[in-house]
Amino acid sequence: MFSQATKTVLIVERLIQEEVLDLIEQGGAKGYTLVPGAGQGEHGRRRASRAAVVKDFSIVRIEFIMADKNKAKAIAEKVADTYFEQYPGIVYISDVEVIRADKF
Amino acid sequence: MFSQATKTVLIVERLIQEEVLDLIEQGGAKGYTLVPGAGQGEHGRRRASRAAVVKDFSIVRIEFIMADKNKAKAIAEKVADTYFEQYPGIVYISDVEVIRADKF
Amino acid sequence: MFSQATKTVLIVERLIQEEVLDLIEQGGAKGYTLVPGAGQGEHGRRRASRAAVVKDFSIVRIEFIMADKNKAKAIAEKVADTYFEQYPGIVYISDVEVIRADKF
Repeated sequence: MFSQATKTVLIVERLIQEEVLDLIEQGGAKGYTLVPGAGQGEHGRRRASRAAVVKDFSIVRIEFIMADKNKAKAIAEKVADTYFEQYPGIVYISDVEVIRADKF
Repeated sequence: MFSQATKTVLIVERLIQEEVLDLIEQGGAKGYTLVPGAGQGEHGRRRASRAAVVKDFSIVRIEFIMADKNKAKAIAEKVADTYFEQYPGIVYISDVEVIRADKF
Repeated sequence: MFSQATKTVLIVERLIQEEVLDLIEQGGAKGYTLVPGAGQGEHGRRRASRAAVVKDFSIVRIEFIMADKNKAKAIAEKVADTYFEQYPGIVYISDVEVIRADKF
């Protein structure tokens, strides 16, 4: 009942959230999940103090599952190429097993 | 000090959160972590506009770790069989390494 | 363009968030991402009722990526040794593929 799939996680500034979601949709992902967060370093813009960092929830963690690993990698690379020179951000992929792979 | 374990992630409507947590507990998981989020597609109910989607935090991302992969798969399948015809939702599992496997 | 790296996830009481972030920084991680959450069992302090648990967001889920798996393991073990006798908490690591491994 379980099939191999690829999970992609993107951690980006809330500022570019809409543009990143556009790239995810254009790349063929059928959905995504987004949670608000905070971060430091490449995981989020560096602030004057950590207290400020962890309270302002200026970043979002976006994840999505795709059956096709190459399509997932293409989205990850497109986001990195487009935004990660100018903005802090992270993207990583990993293998997961999903139920009902046809949904992805 | 690290042992193999299985992480299960469930992304479901907040509407069915309590029922899903019941299934997780009944399936033998010793705990769970829940974060509020938003989503689109099978990652969450589709809305009229993306702005509405990403602001209403109508979904929850639930994760739990179990030492026994078969028990984790059984919970995942039970949730999918019970709810994912009627509600959008995702469940996936992946391999992780944990400290103090006896806790799980 | 993708390189192997290690993702570490720490789920801890908000109460010890600052101390845990200190250990992450001291251990050589170049950043982290933090999201607020709730939990039960070792995933978070047990409360009188589940309703209370899932509303109070008393825990944080912290993740960070490192190119060096041994450094990641050392941080995970340091946090577990320092806090997980006294406080509930979870730490696990997993393999991921990242773009621009030099950032980590």
